[in-house]
This record gives sequence, structure tokens and C-alpha cells, in this order.
Amino acid sequence: MSELLRVTPGFVLADVDADGVPGFDGGKKEGEQALADGAAELADLQERLYAQSLFGGGKRLLLVLQAMDTAGKGGIVGHVVGQVNPQGVKAFAFKAPTDEEKSHDFLWRVRKQLPPAGFLGVFDRSHYEDVLIHRVRGFSTPDEIEKRYGLINDFEAQLVAEQTTIVKVMLHISPDEQKKRLTARLETPEKNWKYNPGDVDERKLWPAYQDAYQRVFDETSTPDAPWFVVPANRKWYARLAVQRLLLDALRGMGLEWPAADYDVEAEKERLAKT
Amino acid sequence: MSELLRVTPGFVLADVDADGVPGFDGGKKEGEQALADGAAELADLQERLYAQSLFGGGKRLLLVLQAMDTAGKGGIVGHVVGQVNPQGVKAFAFKAPTDEEKSHDFLWRVRKQLPPAGFLGVFDRSHYEDVLIHRVRGFSTPDEIEKRYGLINDFEAQLVAEQTTIVKVMLHISPDEQKKRLTARLETPEKNWKYNPGDVDERKLWPAYQDAYQRVFDETSTPDAPWFVVPANRKWYARLAVQRLLLDALRGMGLEWPAADYDVEAEKERLAKT
Repeated sequence: MSELLRVTPGFVLADVDADGVPGFDGGKKEGEQALADGAAELADLQERLYAQSLFGGGKRLLLVLQAMDTAGKGGIVGHVVGQVNPQGVKAFAFKAPTDEEKSHDFLWRVRKQLPPAGFLGVFDRSHYEDVLIHRVRGFSTPDEIEKRYGLINDFEAQLVAEQTTIVKVMLHISPDEQKKRLTARLETPEKNWKYNPGDVDERKLWPAYQDAYQRVFDETSTPDAPWFVVPANRKWYARLAVQRLLLDALRGMGLEWPAADYDVEAEKERLAKT
Repeated sequence: MSELLRVTPGFVLADVDADGVPGFDGGKKEGEQALADGAAELADLQERLYAQSLFGGGKRLLLVLQAMDTAGKGGIVGHVVGQVNPQGVKAFAFKAPTDEEKSHDFLWRVRKQLPPAGFLGVFDRSHYEDVLIHRVRGFSTPDEIEKRYGLINDFEAQLVAEQTTIVKVMLHISPDEQKKRLTARLETPEKNWKYNPGDVDERKLWPAYQDAYQRVFDETSTPDAPWFVVPANRKWYARLAVQRLLLDALRGMGLEWPAADYDVEAEKERLAKT
């Protein structure tokens, strides 16, 4: 499934069917079952990652989530990241930058939230906002934004060199699906808090955002830190797809259980005497 | 169940049966089912807490976990805290302090890990190490340690005044149960990483640790920030008990869904036009 979702040269966002379920042969029921079936392996691999860090291992995994509003980033964190022990998770949701954050370069606040060794880091929004909303809304000059693509690639290459595996995911929904979800937030009092009048303002800029995403994919989907575009009109599929992406990434990280750095037999004897 | 576990004046740790299941009428199977049954409400309440914080609410919840080695703190984080969306969780495991941390007062590093508004914070070990291992091992003078009980009570009272609900849990296992679990860590290669030769050294000081815990309960189980001692020889019971403690705490926090701070009808119209 992962390879079908990977952004490679020539990728066109407009060609992606947000209703699609690439690489999965089944419906909602089978998808939910598959998600549940993968939980144990995901938790196991994350525990190995964490265990390695206690014995000097420096590997870590960073999941970057970007999407239009209502695409389901929160649900991914709850239903996929929620399958591993929270002790090894560092999830952070980036909001509009504070005055202090604005006084630094755009990567300053991002560096502060990077996962420590052994952790699964999750960015709900990220440094990509600085080339998405900044481009669409003109918060930065075009020149600045052009420079940022290169700065982002350098930044991520440095993270990869420091043993961070990066999985960048865009959850892709259709404008109609977003309208349905925003309407539900307005019609259900317990969901009113999830709605923000600004959401409609952003929605009106849909085509400009799609262009900005296309540009992001063209400029920053590198072999070491690739983008994956996940059709997300079906929540069950998006969750399963992100779980599979994390599983593939972790399987590729060589996560053996660390060997004891003490004499096991001697310790058995010491313990037996207590 | 919570009231049976609460430390009140006259509490004697030595009288607690680590095999007990106070307030629960059933065995492992029923306990695991009850834990699963409580998951939805726990996640719902935590989401309300988080939602409130987006509308200016300042409430937060802090779970403090203390225990002898192998008592199951990690399992509590995985199986109970893991039931809520990790986006609203800030879990931190305190290790031996760094040189920088040692150069500050003992609460300095603790303050840095406090949960933000809307979050469920989890301390795996905590400022109580400074009156537990410090007392047992003589890392601080008796005078310093005596002062710390008061400093801790002041610190926690301040947190409560700032809308933090504090739930302090000691997972209580028996020495025999610990021996069994340490042995399992030595006999299972995939568990070797969880064992540390220092664990046996600590184990030899068991009675001194029990005295130090008793003193902690005598000095710091306040009405606003009470201790709960949870029998933990049966992992299923300990997990269920901590879930119930969190549920009780959250139920008492008045967590209504926040009301819309915008005109819902006007927004429906705006959205419909897009």
C-alpha cells in the first residue's frame, strides 16, 4: 500500500481520488479489522525503538501530518498513534506562532518539538504551514517562501542523518466531504467546539491551497523524506493507510531487542539470593 | 473503589494486601472487560477537558505514579492512559537527574513537565523520588528531606489552586511478586532490556523503601492532593483501579462541552454558500 501512496516525480495531486482506497481490497468492516490487527505489531515495534534508546540507540520516527481542516488528523493521532504506549510518543499540534516564535526563524519552534531518541514524534501541522498558509495568505514574501523549500530539505536531511526516519503524510479530502464534516460540526452541539469561523475563510481558498500543496510535493518529496498522499474521504482507510506507513517505516529501521549489557547468569544468582 | 484506595489519616502501608482487589467483585476476565468498558468514557472526558482549554479553560489533570521496580507503571501508561487521544497527553518518565537539574532546586525539573491546560499529564516517577530514594540512599541530608515534605505540599497546593486536579498513585506489589517479575525479565531475552543490575540493589532495601513510602503518605496525602495505594500484584486490577481513579477525578471536574463562541446559525449560512 505504501508505494501506491508515495509522492514521486510527476505526481499530480489533482489526479488523486479522495474517495479511493489504493492497495486495499475490502470495505469499511475489513479495514477496521485490519487496523485492529496491526495494533500489536505497531506497539511491539515502537517498544523496541524505545528499548534501543535505553541502550544508546539514537533512532526515532517522525510522523508529519498536514491536511485541509476536518481531514482527520486528530483521528489519526487517536486511532493509530493511540495504538502504541503513550510513554514513547511525543505528539505536538502546531498553532499560529506566538510573538516569541515569530521573532525566530521558522524552524526554531519546530526543532524544539522533535522527538527524542526512541520516540515516535507526531506533528499535527508543522513547518510546512510556513509554505502553505504563508503562501496562500501572503504572510511571507514569495522570495522568502522560495528559500524555505530548500531550508526545509536541508533541515530534514540533517534529521535523517541524525537517525530520524521521517514519514510525511497529507490527508486528502474533497471539498464536498469537507462541507459535510463542517456542517456536522455546526449541527451537533457537542461538536461546536471543533468549528472555527475561520474554517470557512480557509475553505474559500481551496484551489490556492491545492496549488500550495502541489508545490510542496514538487519541492520537498525527497527519497529520504518522502511525502505520502492518503485519500481520506473514508476515515477507516486513512487510518489504516497511516498505520501501514508507520509499520513499513518501523520494519525498515532494524529494531532488534537490545542485548543485555550485563551478565545475565550472574544476575540470576544475585537475584535468587534476595 | 476510589474511596477504598484513598490514603487517609491512620493509613498503614504494611496492612495493605498487594494481592487484594478492593471494591471489585470479579476476577481477571471481568476486570479486563470492565477496563475495556470504561475506555469510551475516559476518552470522552479527556476530549472535553481538551476542548474546554481551546475556549479558555484552564483545567488539567496530573497523574503521579510511584512504585517499586516492576510494579507496572509502564503498563498503566500503556493500557489506561493509552485509552485517550495521545494528542491530549503529556507523559514524562523522570530518570536520575542530570547535572543541570541537580544545580536547581528539586522541583525545577518537575515544573517543566507539568501538563498544559486541557492535558492529562502523567509522571512516571516524580518529585517524590527526592524523599524516597534520597531518604533511603542518603542522597540528601535528613534536614533537607524533612523540609521537602512541606515544599511538596505547598507546590501541589499551588497547582490545585491553578486548576490542576492531582491524582497520586502508589502501585503496591509484594517482594515475592517483584522477584517473580525480575526473574522473568532475566529469563526472557526480549525482556532483558527491562532489567538493570541496580534493581537488585534497590530490592535489598525494600523495608527502608516501605518506611519512606509510609512517611510520604503521612506527610503528603492532603485532601486536595490525596494518595491512593493500589494493590498491584494483579496487573488487571491495578489497571482497572487507576482507570476508575481517573474517571472519578474527571467526572468531578465539571467537564461540559464548550458552548460555541460564534453565531451557529450565521455560520451555517456562510458555509452553505461555499
